[in-house]
Amino acid sequence: MKNTFYEIKIITDFSAAHHLRDFRGKCENLHGHNWKIEIVLRGTELNEIGVLVDFGEVKQATRALLSEVDHHYLNEIPFFADRNPSSENIARYLFERLAEKFDNDKLRLYRVSAWESDDACATFMRE
Amino acid sequence: MKNTFYEIKIITDFSAAHHLRDFRGKCENLHGHNWKIEIVLRGTELNEIGVLVDFGEVKQATRALLSEVDHHYLNEIPFFADRNPSSENIARYLFERLAEKFDNDKLRLYRVSAWESDDACATFMRE
Amino acid sequence: MKNTFYEIKIITDFSAAHHLRDFRGKCENLHGHNWKIEIVLRGTELNEIGVLVDFGEVKQATRALLSEVDHHYLNEIPFFADRNPSSENIARYLFERLAEKFDNDKLRLYRVSAWESDDACATFMRE
Amino acid sequence: MKNTFYEIKIITDFSAAHHLRDFRGKCENLHGHNWKIEIVLRGTELNEIGVLVDFGEVKQATRALLSEVDHHYLNEIPFFADRNPSSENIARYLFERLAEKFDNDKLRLYRVSAWESDDACATFMRE
Amino acid sequence: MKNTFYEIKIITDFSAAHHLRDFRGKCENLHGHNWKIEIVLRGTELNEIGVLVDFGEVKQATRALLSEVDHHYLNEIPFFADRNPSSENIARYLFERLAEKFDNDKLRLYRVSAWESDDACATFMRE
Amino acid sequence: MKNTFYEIKIITDFSAAHHLRDFRGKCENLHGHNWKIEIVLRGTELNEIGVLVDFGEVKQATRALLSEVDHHYLNEIPFFADRNPSSENIARYLFERLAEKFDNDKLRLYRVSAWESDDACATFMRE
Repeated sequence: MKNTFYEIKIITDFSAAHHLRDFRGKCENLHGHNWKIEIVLRGTELNEIGVLVDFGEVKQATRALLSEVDHHYLNEIPFFADRNPSSENIARYLFERLAEKFDNDKLRLYRVSAWESDDACATFMRE
Repeated sequence: MKNTFYEIKIITDFSAAHHLRDFRGKCENLHGHNWKIEIVLRGTELNEIGVLVDFGEVKQATRALLSEVDHHYLNEIPFFADRNPSSENIARYLFERLAEKFDNDKLRLYRVSAWESDDACATFMRE
Repeated sequence: MKNTFYEIKIITDFSAAHHLRDFRGKCENLHGHNWKIEIVLRGTELNEIGVLVDFGEVKQATRALLSEVDHHYLNEIPFFADRNPSSENIARYLFERLAEKFDNDKLRLYRVSAWESDDACATFMRE
Repeated sequence: MKNTFYEIKIITDFSAAHHLRDFRGKCENLHGHNWKIEIVLRGTELNEIGVLVDFGEVKQATRALLSEVDHHYLNEIPFFADRNPSSENIARYLFERLAEKFDNDKLRLYRVSAWESDDACATFMRE
Repeated sequence: MKNTFYEIKIITDFSAAHHLRDFRGKCENLHGHNWKIEIVLRGTELNEIGVLVDFGEVKQATRALLSEVDHHYLNEIPFFADRNPSSENIARYLFERLAEKFDNDKLRLYRVSAWESDDACATFMRE
Repeated sequence: MKNTFYEIKIITDFSAAHHLRDFRGKCENLHGHNWKIEIVLRGTELNEIGVLVDFGEVKQATRALLSEVDHHYLNEIPFFADRNPSSENIARYLFERLAEKFDNDKLRLYRVSAWESDDACATFMRE
């Protein structure tokens, strides 16, 4: 079969406070969420053990990164000093940080999604 | 059959910021959650339409009450001026307010549960 | 330890159409739901295999009963000829039928719950 | 980073009755479902507030459209006069209506999915 | 209000292999599950911080106990030498171990539930 | 509208034991999981009934295939004799078997995903 590939996805979460500046509506108030975070990586070949990458390794790296935002007030994080801590920007922030860590010649970060509630999700991704 | 009864449960949610005073750990920081709220009512007889109480009526009353905390900073709500806005106290606050509204000779509020995450829930209830 | 017991719960579902007679609101229209059904049985002792009752046996009996309502128009089922097919009455109907089947000196049906949506559930149960 | 974009997804639902004409099987009977609806929009740039589009605006527009089918008998809706109200056609119907509303030079509707149960979903989408 | 109390629930999980001896059916084969574990504690008063017990403390104690069964073959655990590793017996095993740890004059373990799949759950509990 | 297509997804599951050879970590032990399996098919046109393919037919074919692994020890399945029964390889195994069955000029298998837990999923797919 041609043009096949593998994808792995892990899900984790963090809890934080935020408010959106200049937003017309209730999100302008100080409030908070549990964000559920999905990380998706892609590659065409498995390693000698038969996995694309160890789930545990991806979870650990993501949790280490999330510890910088978990149980914090997002508007005080430097990345959000000049842009709103919207779920779109949270997804982008995590994407940029995790791509540095995971991209190599066999593996690339494909998307990061941030669910701010059970019915609303923002994703930053590449083709 | 003897000693039977009906129960209805509705689930709704709100998003807010809070911090726990004097808590040793990360919950002392300003952060936030999506709280999932379960409301359970009990009664022994259905009305002439064949329901214990209209789900829509319970949802509407609960949402009206939750609008006081949704997208707010819980530590600024008067009920939490002299007690921490823990999930236990949130459940109790909602219970006391909803019992006033729903308790009558055919119906009684049985429990209110507040999930602060997918794996942690606090309940205030009565026998 | 005293006064301990076991409980088993299985979850299944069915899809049907219904309407509620004399209901002021949108439920008076012909519409439908996926009902998620929870069956809970209690007993104080396990059998020689170490289970209260085989999950598979409970699932099979429940599915056999649900085949009478799945993909049907509930208002045409005899039990609902003189009472509305509300979730409360659906729970009661299933409870009465399953208690006949499961109650014995070692096991008793404790409750039947019918979720008509992800956020609204009716239960018929006994003490 | 090149060729990156944002995606937002919202989830909502409606409950309705339907039957499938000429279908060999139980779906030919009058029955019903809770359909869970996912709406996905894509774009390459965030607005000045830092969001692709306000989640609340997408939810409101989708709920307004769903009010035409919620608690109705789908076979009576004009769009389904000459085609079956299958989940595939429901997804297409919602896609065509929402694309008119949301497509602009910064945003395009990418897909609409209709879950007719927790384990069966149909999607209408474009490349 | 009289006869009120608090309840806290945490959810965690473990993955293991098992087989049921003398079981007529597919569970007699060596197979495995992800067990989702619910721990419920009850008490009538909150501590000076305003919680019944710290969620983190309950999660940590439960995870420490589960490390003895996670990623193991349950039939080799001593408790299951002379009784089947059914979900009922798993719930009882965890209950007995956690009651020793948590029961005191302000707090008591109320129930432990073990979901062996999304639709089958066994509980060991006391009145 | 141009370049549109339909997708259908079904979800099912199986329970099995496995261990990963030469894996540094706890997955090297004999253990087990409930794997949740997602099957996604794509096509550009609906049949005369108005569906891409009958959900029931896809579920039945997938369950028939899964009966070969459900309640088994995966390391004893021939496909896994010379490669580890990782979730990646499970997804590939199911993909290859189901593509044979479903691919035709109107329909093609697009992806198979295997969730080994609620927070870890592997996919085998094609462009």
